[in-house]
Amino acid sequence: MNNNMKDFTCPVPILEHDTIQLAHGAGGQLSSKLIETMFLPRFGNKILNDLEDQAVVPLNAGRLAISTDSFVVDPIFFPGGNIGELAVNGTVNDVAMSGAKPLYLTVGFILEEGLPMEILHRILLSMEAAAKKAGVTIITGDTKVVNHGSCDQIFINTTGIGQVPDNVNISASSLRPGDKIIISGTVADHGMAVMTSREGLSFQSRVNSDTAALNHMISKMIEVSPNIHALRDPTRGGVATTLNEFAKSSNIGIRILEGSIPILPDTRAACEVLGIDPLNVANEGKLIAAVPGEIAADMLQVIKRCEYGNNAEIIGEVIDDHPGMVTMKTALGALRIIDMPLGEQLPRIC
Amino acid sequence: MNNNMKDFTCPVPILEHDTIQLAHGAGGQLSSKLIETMFLPRFGNKILNDLEDQAVVPLNAGRLAISTDSFVVDPIFFPGGNIGELAVNGTVNDVAMSGAKPLYLTVGFILEEGLPMEILHRILLSMEAAAKKAGVTIITGDTKVVNHGSCDQIFINTTGIGQVPDNVNISASSLRPGDKIIISGTVADHGMAVMTSREGLSFQSRVNSDTAALNHMISKMIEVSPNIHALRDPTRGGVATTLNEFAKSSNIGIRILEGSIPILPDTRAACEVLGIDPLNVANEGKLIAAVPGEIAADMLQVIKRCEYGNNAEIIGEVIDDHPGMVTMKTALGALRIIDMPLGEQLPRIC
Repeated sequence: MNNNMKDFTCPVPILEHDTIQLAHGAGGQLSSKLIETMFLPRFGNKILNDLEDQAVVPLNAGRLAISTDSFVVDPIFFPGGNIGELAVNGTVNDVAMSGAKPLYLTVGFILEEGLPMEILHRILLSMEAAAKKAGVTIITGDTKVVNHGSCDQIFINTTGIGQVPDNVNISASSLRPGDKIIISGTVADHGMAVMTSREGLSFQSRVNSDTAALNHMISKMIEVSPNIHALRDPTRGGVATTLNEFAKSSNIGIRILEGSIPILPDTRAACEVLGIDPLNVANEGKLIAAVPGEIAADMLQVIKRCEYGNNAEIIGEVIDDHPGMVTMKTALGALRIIDMPLGEQLPRIC
Repeated sequence: MNNNMKDFTCPVPILEHDTIQLAHGAGGQLSSKLIETMFLPRFGNKILNDLEDQAVVPLNAGRLAISTDSFVVDPIFFPGGNIGELAVNGTVNDVAMSGAKPLYLTVGFILEEGLPMEILHRILLSMEAAAKKAGVTIITGDTKVVNHGSCDQIFINTTGIGQVPDNVNISASSLRPGDKIIISGTVADHGMAVMTSREGLSFQSRVNSDTAALNHMISKMIEVSPNIHALRDPTRGGVATTLNEFAKSSNIGIRILEGSIPILPDTRAACEVLGIDPLNVANEGKLIAAVPGEIAADMLQVIKRCEYGNNAEIIGEVIDDHPGMVTMKTALGALRIIDMPLGEQLPRIC
């Protein structure tokens, strides 16, 4: 978590109950009190404070990018983050991957009866900090409470809305032979941070989640050139899934080079111990871009200068061969097919 | 349910698994298969079919209304409806209560491992029918699967987006003395349908949920006059909560007449047996409007001609006295304060 100082300086608001009650979700007086003492001090703004059942915001004509995601990560606190900042960053990223500037978030909480207020408070503090850093406003929300045992502590849905610049047309179906594939940093950190904390494994150095909002990086990339062909964050299913989606949507081949894929030693060690292919593991603060070959070097340099892009690399290219397929040249020079994972390895990773 | 015929004519798609597996939510091949065989046949449209991580839609300049809601109703099938159509209608209504025309919905599913595909299929059929009837398009979605025991079958988040006509300014803070309070039909039906089915109570006639989308009714109302002061659907917390929210936001008094409040005999009987005040019970297909006295009669007539408005009534008025409070003249002529319910009576009603 990045909020350690804030945890100390911002105590849990004083409420009659120190855990979540069913009545906090029933729409009556206790619901109002929960909103007033816990949510508004964190997220309050002119639009949210109206407490209408819907937010009304002005918008210029153009294209709107909209994305929704429910977060059910287990455990809710993991090395490098928690479910709250993950829920903000994840949806900001999904909106931003269209090239859009994320503007607004909605938040829906499902809380388990008995959840300590102190846990909720810590999660809300992280969400506040993450929204501020990404520059998005939380404009409306909803809270439901279910009886003890009917959900696992807390689930969070976020829906994000942004505006797409007129000159940008990014799509998984726009890759062309000759494009270079760039990854913005090391792979598999988020998934392995959650997995190792869940399994109670400890390594010499802890693996930390990479959860981060990439919208500012993407703005910088569009300044270099709006002619980015495809952009996606390799979350569930990892790099292997994103590249396969690109290959299938555009009906082109993708060839990557094993040696060029950045991975931290501790993350690699964790993958090896658990027998997991790092290409199948979720990332929460990385993007994969496909850009025309002639702008790839400039794009890489800009990404490397961004806060979360130091370890960016060109990992491969788009080819005519094997349309719809992803292949990897291994360290030993062999060619391996990179398929989409079946997916059963890593449930509740986000 | 309104889809009985469809249940027969549209069989569950054939999948390798007849229950939800953890891998269906892990972002790999099984996730893709679930989307392709279960979701796209129901909701498929040009935007959704792109299967990008975000939807991109064109929009005119103006004001956008946005609302989000998570649905955790227990049981998921209840007399008159199920969690799927409730999730569509509920968010359509929250958007429409601003006067906006609802256009788009996002849907986030949290599914419990082991949920029968047949159950999911029935819910999706209802959502398809409800979206079609309301005239909204489902443009993007997300599915998470949690291990058995970590959620109660299925939770659904919907977020809705609509455009507010330029000449409409509806707000809970716009009520003025002299306004009439209109309710669009009988109260307490949804809450009592869920409660009686949950408690296993049976009455001579079953109480059916009133779940319905009211956006078409609201369009008709705006045609009569855009000068509607306030509009809200009395869901969780019921009519008592909505009227108290109006009174507090506008700092006016509201006086209602007990005898004028429409309620079905079976619903009244169920409330009496369970000792619940019908004014505190959730509705899912009703609106409360505050309109200037001079247009109240015309507004009532238009509502009565709408599909879900036959039983509409003027139930009270806005007064100068007791600002911030709601009072009711009882059948016996006494004056009773109608407070917001504490809220513990009816958890998981929506």
